[in-house]
Amino acid sequence: MSSTIKKIGVLTSGGDSPGMNAAIRAVVRACSYYNVECVGIYRGYQGMIEGDFKAMGPRDVKNIINKGGTILKSARSKDFMTKEGREKSFHNLKNSGVDALVLIGGDGTFTGAEIFNAEFNFPVIGIPGTIDNDIFGTTNTLGYDTALNTVVDAIDKIRDTANSHNRLFFVEVMGRDAGHIALNAGIGAGAEEILIPEEAFGLDRLVESLNRSKESGKTSSIVVVSEGDKIGKNVFELKDYVEENMPEYDVRVSVLGHMQRGGSPSCFDRVLASRLGVKAVESLLEGKSNFMVGLIEDKIALTPLEQAIKGSSKMDMELVKVSDIVSS
Amino acid sequence: MSSTIKKIGVLTSGGDSPGMNAAIRAVVRACSYYNVECVGIYRGYQGMIEGDFKAMGPRDVKNIINKGGTILKSARSKDFMTKEGREKSFHNLKNSGVDALVLIGGDGTFTGAEIFNAEFNFPVIGIPGTIDNDIFGTTNTLGYDTALNTVVDAIDKIRDTANSHNRLFFVEVMGRDAGHIALNAGIGAGAEEILIPEEAFGLDRLVESLNRSKESGKTSSIVVVSEGDKIGKNVFELKDYVEENMPEYDVRVSVLGHMQRGGSPSCFDRVLASRLGVKAVESLLEGKSNFMVGLIEDKIALTPLEQAIKGSSKMDMELVKVSDIVSS
Amino acid sequence: MSSTIKKIGVLTSGGDSPGMNAAIRAVVRACSYYNVECVGIYRGYQGMIEGDFKAMGPRDVKNIINKGGTILKSARSKDFMTKEGREKSFHNLKNSGVDALVLIGGDGTFTGAEIFNAEFNFPVIGIPGTIDNDIFGTTNTLGYDTALNTVVDAIDKIRDTANSHNRLFFVEVMGRDAGHIALNAGIGAGAEEILIPEEAFGLDRLVESLNRSKESGKTSSIVVVSEGDKIGKNVFELKDYVEENMPEYDVRVSVLGHMQRGGSPSCFDRVLASRLGVKAVESLLEGKSNFMVGLIEDKIALTPLEQAIKGSSKMDMELVKVSDIVSS
Amino acid sequence: MSSTIKKIGVLTSGGDSPGMNAAIRAVVRACSYYNVECVGIYRGYQGMIEGDFKAMGPRDVKNIINKGGTILKSARSKDFMTKEGREKSFHNLKNSGVDALVLIGGDGTFTGAEIFNAEFNFPVIGIPGTIDNDIFGTTNTLGYDTALNTVVDAIDKIRDTANSHNRLFFVEVMGRDAGHIALNAGIGAGAEEILIPEEAFGLDRLVESLNRSKESGKTSSIVVVSEGDKIGKNVFELKDYVEENMPEYDVRVSVLGHMQRGGSPSCFDRVLASRLGVKAVESLLEGKSNFMVGLIEDKIALTPLEQAIKGSSKMDMELVKVSDIVSS
Repeated sequence: MSSTIKKIGVLTSGGDSPGMNAAIRAVVRACSYYNVECVGIYRGYQGMIEGDFKAMGPRDVKNIINKGGTILKSARSKDFMTKEGREKSFHNLKNSGVDALVLIGGDGTFTGAEIFNAEFNFPVIGIPGTIDNDIFGTTNTLGYDTALNTVVDAIDKIRDTANSHNRLFFVEVMGRDAGHIALNAGIGAGAEEILIPEEAFGLDRLVESLNRSKESGKTSSIVVVSEGDKIGKNVFELKDYVEENMPEYDVRVSVLGHMQRGGSPSCFDRVLASRLGVKAVESLLEGKSNFMVGLIEDKIALTPLEQAIKGSSKMDMELVKVSDIVSS
Repeated sequence: MSSTIKKIGVLTSGGDSPGMNAAIRAVVRACSYYNVECVGIYRGYQGMIEGDFKAMGPRDVKNIINKGGTILKSARSKDFMTKEGREKSFHNLKNSGVDALVLIGGDGTFTGAEIFNAEFNFPVIGIPGTIDNDIFGTTNTLGYDTALNTVVDAIDKIRDTANSHNRLFFVEVMGRDAGHIALNAGIGAGAEEILIPEEAFGLDRLVESLNRSKESGKTSSIVVVSEGDKIGKNVFELKDYVEENMPEYDVRVSVLGHMQRGGSPSCFDRVLASRLGVKAVESLLEGKSNFMVGLIEDKIALTPLEQAIKGSSKMDMELVKVSDIVSS
Repeated sequence: MSSTIKKIGVLTSGGDSPGMNAAIRAVVRACSYYNVECVGIYRGYQGMIEGDFKAMGPRDVKNIINKGGTILKSARSKDFMTKEGREKSFHNLKNSGVDALVLIGGDGTFTGAEIFNAEFNFPVIGIPGTIDNDIFGTTNTLGYDTALNTVVDAIDKIRDTANSHNRLFFVEVMGRDAGHIALNAGIGAGAEEILIPEEAFGLDRLVESLNRSKESGKTSSIVVVSEGDKIGKNVFELKDYVEENMPEYDVRVSVLGHMQRGGSPSCFDRVLASRLGVKAVESLLEGKSNFMVGLIEDKIALTPLEQAIKGSSKMDMELVKVSDIVSS
Repeated sequence: MSSTIKKIGVLTSGGDSPGMNAAIRAVVRACSYYNVECVGIYRGYQGMIEGDFKAMGPRDVKNIINKGGTILKSARSKDFMTKEGREKSFHNLKNSGVDALVLIGGDGTFTGAEIFNAEFNFPVIGIPGTIDNDIFGTTNTLGYDTALNTVVDAIDKIRDTANSHNRLFFVEVMGRDAGHIALNAGIGAGAEEILIPEEAFGLDRLVESLNRSKESGKTSSIVVVSEGDKIGKNVFELKDYVEENMPEYDVRVSVLGHMQRGGSPSCFDRVLASRLGVKAVESLLEGKSNFMVGLIEDKIALTPLEQAIKGSSKMDMELVKVSDIVSS
């Protein structure tokens, strides 16, 4: 590929997710393959402001495809929200000869990239990296598939003890304002109920449903609750409500927490990261900018960053129905 | 749903794969949800011939969604290839009041279903269950995603010891005549080379490539070989050839074998199984027959069984290129 | 073995733990091997009172060695604390011909067994099953090794995200009043600090130590806190204190919760369960009673139940020092 | 501790095993704790001859406790078997100021260390690192516990598919001349038969036993075969023999291979490695030499290297009997 771009910078920003390292590796190796230089930028936009750069070749990314987290580290940067911070960044990039950027992160990351592109006409391509799967323009964000397996594995363990004791467990999972993790991991874990922000379930209906579940012969129950769900103020309030209204139940709460953000990425996330990383570099070299690379109907495709930020990933209502049917 | 169908039979046939139990569970619970009876048929077509049936309700399939294998067991049946065998099957089904079938398996299973449907005008719907992902009409067969994770996890372990000793490993993976497992797990595991039947690589090119890899500074290598690949007679012959031509290498072989067919299904496979199982029952109740349910562009869709059998799943050549780039 | 015992009952009681099923399997098969009958008693002492018994043969315990939880289910029984409850139990056992018991559980379970033995001169042998490892007379309780691996695996994932963000995590683990899980999993996970009830650490010393850790160049930290530790009222209070005194830190809390009680048992726990189950049956057949079977200096050995209840497993202070050294 | 020793070298040699990195980390940090310098020696004795040394501080070993393999790499060295090679080593050590060695490996490693000590009166302490558990003077070698879990996890997967098809599987596991892995993982995986070199089983007895197993109602079987077992020439010959004599069986072979040597170490192996690494450094500083540190009756204890090399770890015959009983 011939291109005016000679050196590409890559950074990770926002919450980390499994697969980010695999994407960094793919960006670095695609640069090498297409004979452009590559520079790793540490700690996201903050490192861009501070000039925390490192030249990266194919051997610098060996043995990271299977590691969670991000070797470039991540951070949230207040300074990048100022014009001054972004100007510093621009000068650092220019001084280092970096003439295009690949940014791995979520909404916030892309918003920063869009502004930066608008102000300095600097070529940027985004890669969606977050476990929450809440980005428009891709069926999967990096780390989402891994997080689903982590959640399902944890709930399988909780199920062992729930079954042994005829208990009811509320399991809170991540996902910010989106119920993707809760719905999919809930189905995968065979949850009796799944509470997601996209569906207002109501406390009465929950108790009703748990009663039906008990009558059908179930002796233990798992209720998966998305952290964004608003049925109760939080999962502990849910517990209190159910204990009051169903005193026969021994209710427990488990908040899965940050382990959902780590771990060795699944094969799916590693392959997706590899595809997205390669495509991001190729897109820049083809003169494209201000796009996010994503997976749409099983193909790698570009979506304008603006749409990726404004749009929201939809909840598949077929899945909600499947969930009702298989938990019967 | 109103329908003339009152009782649905479900069986698993051919090689088992993770997710089959989740699909059985979904079929049983969808039957319950739509108020039709459900009958489990043991040991595939052989059990159908022998009348090895069991009525199944929602509680009979509890706690199986996370189990590998198939509680209905599987078998290959020579008797079902005879007219007599199929007639016996038909009479057993009629006598038990079963008026439609869901069949979980691969090519061979679907071929049997199609013949049975043609001879007795018996409603059949197939669900693709095989780790090989070699079925036309679905982007994923049940068990494929799980097998990829199993393979990648095993190769991660092999990589630990390969790195410690500067060794070259040939790792043979399953997939029959298709290279899907090898290509995807190979990318996921960061393999230096991936040998698949869809691409004639040649022994000379392999040695050349390994030499380049060594010159680039790599001190250990993993070559993933699809069992269907024909570059050498088998993976041990490959080892001999490379040892002869690259005496500086300490070469080892690992044939991953049947562990690839088992294990707790991934979240993806559990959700897919749930969706396919529900859709299979709904399709029968809507009067459809002779279709396979599959995943096409992220939606559950039907493909005529005939096409599913004759068509072949294509290898994505974008992926082959991605593999070349990221292994550089 | 010749013995007056013809039928042995087995139950699980108290909190369940991985390896209980493997122990049940070993008890059932040892009975078969020595030609005595075996009866499974459901839901611990409560099922004994209610006569919830089932005859068990070798095939009834197939494919359970790798399953978490307990197929006999567990429960806490208030009724068994009454003389009346125990008399009912005795009559149920006599009526069923059960003339000896194997009880799998912890302190509370053994206390019940000792009383029952004293009142009715009924032969009892205990098997220590709890993840907390807080039983005198055995270096390992069933499930402890598995729980350690579960905790370490979870913290490895948390470490990924802690490293990516330079964060401080407080991770609360189980263990009741004993710090075994915290100390061992803390060392295993490479924790910077480990807070256990056996050692009064003090909030000041914690902050001091975290400061030293930071000065030594560490950019993220994991502090493992035993649920029994009394340094703060709870782990959230710890977070508040550290945030106030070390405002530069981004502090997070993760309470691992009940997933620690489930999961497929480790090989160690499966083998230990097999050895203890066999030995429990053999001990009864040799006329022994009122003992716990345990692992002492790598050999299966008996400890009087009374001692097992009153004694307490000691914390190895060598390990505390090792922890200080390797976290430097 | 006051000592004449100012700088300690550490190396890994022979086959790598999970836990070696945790031991390296403990050695490095114990050196720091006791204010002596530490030098990592790459590629075992070969690196010692070639002067492939690197000063190591506490931060150089961060985030390796959970990694399989060895960051110091390993190798077998023919040169070290020559007087010349050992003299070169001695001069390299002296020139670098290294005045004591910690050697992590197996029999061969210790033999080299003993000779080196005898020739140059150079202080050496060995740490047993091999998955085979075939070293006298320790109940566990580093990596053995992890390997057991890897094997059991793999056989659990094979069991899924064996059960689904009523098949007989021969699973070959590692262990060199010792049956420890086979016996323990065989019990853990619920194997029907376990063939170990310590017990001459005979092909006839195997067929007999499989027949009994079948008659008792078992429909699938797993036979675990130690690589050192001599019942057949190899596991494929076993398959042929059984197929000839039990034509009703569908027999498969799985050779688990090198994945057994890798993977993230279990909590047990990480803690053991930490304890052994600390003790090795402390022993050198106390003026001890020519010992192996090991785990004996749950305490860290020293065994003269000579005994560690000549002695052999015994097979516990109680376990063989337990295996017979629980597989009934």
